[in-house]
Amino acid sequence: MDPDARTLNRDTTVCISLSGRPSNIGTRFHNHLYNDLGLDFVYKAFTAHDLVDAVAGIRGLGIRGAGISMPYKEAVIPMVDVMHDSASAIESVNTIVNDDGTLHAYNTDYQAVANLLRDSGFDVSWDVAVAGSGGMAKAVVAAVRDSGFGEITVVSRNPETGRELADKYDARWVDALGGQRPRLLINATPIGMSGGSQADDLPFTHDAVATATAGVDVVAMPPDTPFARTFRDSGRPVITGDAVIALQAAEQFVLYTGVRPTDEQIAAASEYSRR
Amino acid sequence: MDPDARTLNRDTTVCISLSGRPSNIGTRFHNHLYNDLGLDFVYKAFTAHDLVDAVAGIRGLGIRGAGISMPYKEAVIPMVDVMHDSASAIESVNTIVNDDGTLHAYNTDYQAVANLLRDSGFDVSWDVAVAGSGGMAKAVVAAVRDSGFGEITVVSRNPETGRELADKYDARWVDALGGQRPRLLINATPIGMSGGSQADDLPFTHDAVATATAGVDVVAMPPDTPFARTFRDSGRPVITGDAVIALQAAEQFVLYTGVRPTDEQIAAASEYSRR
Repeated sequence: MDPDARTLNRDTTVCISLSGRPSNIGTRFHNHLYNDLGLDFVYKAFTAHDLVDAVAGIRGLGIRGAGISMPYKEAVIPMVDVMHDSASAIESVNTIVNDDGTLHAYNTDYQAVANLLRDSGFDVSWDVAVAGSGGMAKAVVAAVRDSGFGEITVVSRNPETGRELADKYDARWVDALGGQRPRLLINATPIGMSGGSQADDLPFTHDAVATATAGVDVVAMPPDTPFARTFRDSGRPVITGDAVIALQAAEQFVLYTGVRPTDEQIAAASEYSRR
Repeated sequence: MDPDARTLNRDTTVCISLSGRPSNIGTRFHNHLYNDLGLDFVYKAFTAHDLVDAVAGIRGLGIRGAGISMPYKEAVIPMVDVMHDSASAIESVNTIVNDDGTLHAYNTDYQAVANLLRDSGFDVSWDVAVAGSGGMAKAVVAAVRDSGFGEITVVSRNPETGRELADKYDARWVDALGGQRPRLLINATPIGMSGGSQADDLPFTHDAVATATAGVDVVAMPPDTPFARTFRDSGRPVITGDAVIALQAAEQFVLYTGVRPTDEQIAAASEYSRR
């Protein structure tokens, strides 16, 4: 029997995730911690067949919590009752907590990226480029800005969402880096995700990736994306998506259960979740 | 680790039940069989906080199957797409199968009661009284009629639903048995269910229960209701709710999974479900 096997009963509290293309990471991470901490909870990743119906199901079935992944982080906003600061500041939701029928929305990606940048040793004098302008990019750009980095460029093919995101955080928008060579490159797109159409691509030009000082990737499946690998192979520091996803999932865990696991418990669940 | 512990992943198929007051029986029965047969399914009982939202959740989350219990067996009818004969004949649904977004409705209580009566050795010349006029009573009266019993009385405090049910199956309605002493008494109400307000009551007068030849009870929690105990203590035959619930759950299992367990597997799951 696997260590995350759950024995269910009528009183078991259910948490879920809603995603266009779910991975197994959240299911394994949360169930591992429930077992480790002896909590009568169970976690299951779902593909949302219809977002409105799925969120109705959270209410109707009394599901305690829901991780919200691509492509629903913004679409879900009108369906929740209370937008907390972490979500309202960036207009992106990655966590719903159902408190007796009232749906509270949070964004734990923001906190996870901010914490990782704080502990990274990266110099805030470095210029930064962030690829993407979706829900995850909003969390990343906000965290970069709030971490004290001065010069930020949003790289996005979509001029509308790219400009809007850049304007909000006093950043610059470009549709491609061109000759710019930022010292810190952050991927907040699905580029490099296994199974996607761009699994083998880089989120920035090869030259920019080759000359940057450090990188951050939000793609966790796999954590060794072509982007992350380029940094690692040349001995340059890179924060990979497995670290981002574990930290944000740990914050979700606290919101759902009211219990904060130790760093060791989080590390063990994270390691198990990627096996 | 319990033998019904489930290891979940993103592809695990989910089945649920919706009930006003769920028991643990379905959750334990189905999960035990999933493990026994090596199926990547998981089952969880839910209290429906709102029936419309809960059924939306079945669609939105792609939940494969849902057992429908009191008090939702009739209310759910307008929310499904296809009423199959077992449900439409008695206008009561206890099973929903989600076939790629199309919700099919069945009633496995009918089949379970009909099979138990067939195997009981009870004589169809006996006069029968059925207590109740709700969703379960509809399944029971239909099964009694279709099993060949001739003289049927519906005993129900509610004249409207009681008369309607009696008329449909050419039975008689009374609000109380009075001096009548039917040979076969069938309880299709929640009277005797643990935790309910009538846990210690009988569904018929004490005299009628004391003089009947045989009994059937649909209450499974506990299977030794005061009604069933009265028959058992005096050595008279009684079919108890654990048999009804196991048979109807086995039929649901087949509808959800497409796999028919052996009688031995059903018996083992049923025994485990009531532990």
